[in-house]
Amino acid sequence: MSNKKEACCALTFREPFRVRFSEVDSMRIVWHGEYIRYFEDGREAFGHQYGISYLDIFNQGYTLPVVEVSCQYKQSLTMGDTGIIEVCYVPTESAKVCFEYRIFRDSDHALVATGSSVQVFLDQNNELVLLNPPFYLEWKKRWKVL
Amino acid sequence: MSNKKEACCALTFREPFRVRFSEVDSMRIVWHGEYIRYFEDGREAFGHQYGISYLDIFNQGYTLPVVEVSCQYKQSLTMGDTGIIEVCYVPTESAKVCFEYRIFRDSDHALVATGSSVQVFLDQNNELVLLNPPFYLEWKKRWKVL
Amino acid sequence: MSNKKEACCALTFREPFRVRFSEVDSMRIVWHGEYIRYFEDGREAFGHQYGISYLDIFNQGYTLPVVEVSCQYKQSLTMGDTGIIEVCYVPTESAKVCFEYRIFRDSDHALVATGSSVQVFLDQNNELVLLNPPFYLEWKKRWKVL
Amino acid sequence: MSNKKEACCALTFREPFRVRFSEVDSMRIVWHGEYIRYFEDGREAFGHQYGISYLDIFNQGYTLPVVEVSCQYKQSLTMGDTGIIEVCYVPTESAKVCFEYRIFRDSDHALVATGSSVQVFLDQNNELVLLNPPFYLEWKKRWKVL
Repeated sequence: MSNKKEACCALTFREPFRVRFSEVDSMRIVWHGEYIRYFEDGREAFGHQYGISYLDIFNQGYTLPVVEVSCQYKQSLTMGDTGIIEVCYVPTESAKVCFEYRIFRDSDHALVATGSSVQVFLDQNNELVLLNPPFYLEWKKRWKVL
Repeated sequence: MSNKKEACCALTFREPFRVRFSEVDSMRIVWHGEYIRYFEDGREAFGHQYGISYLDIFNQGYTLPVVEVSCQYKQSLTMGDTGIIEVCYVPTESAKVCFEYRIFRDSDHALVATGSSVQVFLDQNNELVLLNPPFYLEWKKRWKVL
Repeated sequence: MSNKKEACCALTFREPFRVRFSEVDSMRIVWHGEYIRYFEDGREAFGHQYGISYLDIFNQGYTLPVVEVSCQYKQSLTMGDTGIIEVCYVPTESAKVCFEYRIFRDSDHALVATGSSVQVFLDQNNELVLLNPPFYLEWKKRWKVL
Repeated sequence: MSNKKEACCALTFREPFRVRFSEVDSMRIVWHGEYIRYFEDGREAFGHQYGISYLDIFNQGYTLPVVEVSCQYKQSLTMGDTGIIEVCYVPTESAKVCFEYRIFRDSDHALVATGSSVQVFLDQNNELVLLNPPFYLEWKKRWKVL
């Protein structure tokens, strides 16, 4: 598959997904709230690819709740469509994990939606972690996104 | 509100609910999978009413996963409809919690769906509990459903 | 941040909601994507209150898809919690419908999340409507939010 | 029960799926209601494979709402698990479409859940179709499931 649109950054991940019947609303388009799930699905797939999935983070003694999410809808997806979720890791110095997202329609490569998310680290007492955890600094070094 | 249909048993609970936009599918009816959530919402409301909510059970050291669920669809609900969920506790001697459900349309009292569920007790090691936990026997005694 | 129970604007709506079991994730907090649904539920309840629900709009020959949504998470909700969704209509001159949202925890009135949404009008050919539809201008006049 | 990987019938479809973060509940297992969605996802994939997807049926002038669904839970799926959904078409003479489902855990081939569904045909007036639609009889002939 060749989706000409340039990836939005260096550390990126793209994956196709099928629109599910249960995701389509009474306007016959994918319900807007489902895009938040598409973002998360893409983020998890990114995490598996790059060794920073929820389970990887959990096994290091942290959780990574979402503290901000946004989505801008340009076009729509409907029954029978295949979408492409593109996840871009956005480096930041603070103890946060930032992603940007783009969703494309596979058939015509149209940009359907853009979005972003911010996550923070909580430790095992559910306290906010103010400094980047060592394992995360290691991860950034490994992928040259310091 | 008077819904003439007789309750299906002695220990019962009824509650209205609004159909949410996100629950309606591309056929312009509530997506069939949402009824499983309506059942659970009703079961939780029953639990609050009768002192046997998930948190009550969890605080006793147990969880109560669903091991069987079924739903029969007679009619449909759509945008703007108010439904009524009716939950009936079905006594059984074994270490199970059984419910039957009926969902009505509020406007015309039509029976929209029926269903049932079976739950079992797991202890804190996630082991199946074969005998009714003492707190549950107490609960049954209190509500005369032994 | 000051969590005074002041409404964020003139035309506003507040409603309590119970956290549902199915909304709570493996971190034992409400899954972040559910807030998009809470916003929509609040928006629909606002619509019923003020005569501008999805069905009202649909009956005028329009749909009102969401083109932007954002959510900022401050705290979390969990099993057993009651939340309060507050919806504020934000007047704008262009042919858009803008809302801001605040979600509070009922027990301690803590501000749990803030958010916003933008919707646009589509006509019966699914074409973007660039001028405010007459019925919507009437509605604004009626509620003095021109 | 024997978990041999035998298909449960002649016309069958199997497909792996990843457990999504948002599908896992506060007991750290996939929420039981998600299995209804897994069944539907498998049914749609079956439909694409065998030329009887929702869109194929819709293009013939029919819809195919679910009138019965059931699920029996044997084990659980959790974060990081890959499941296998197996969909089996169950021939019947009446104007119904019946499926049986089995869900397996990929890592150890354990049978996690079984289930079934019944669907009926509605015509463009949303009237129940009592005789098998011609296109469906053709489909059955083609796949030798008359």
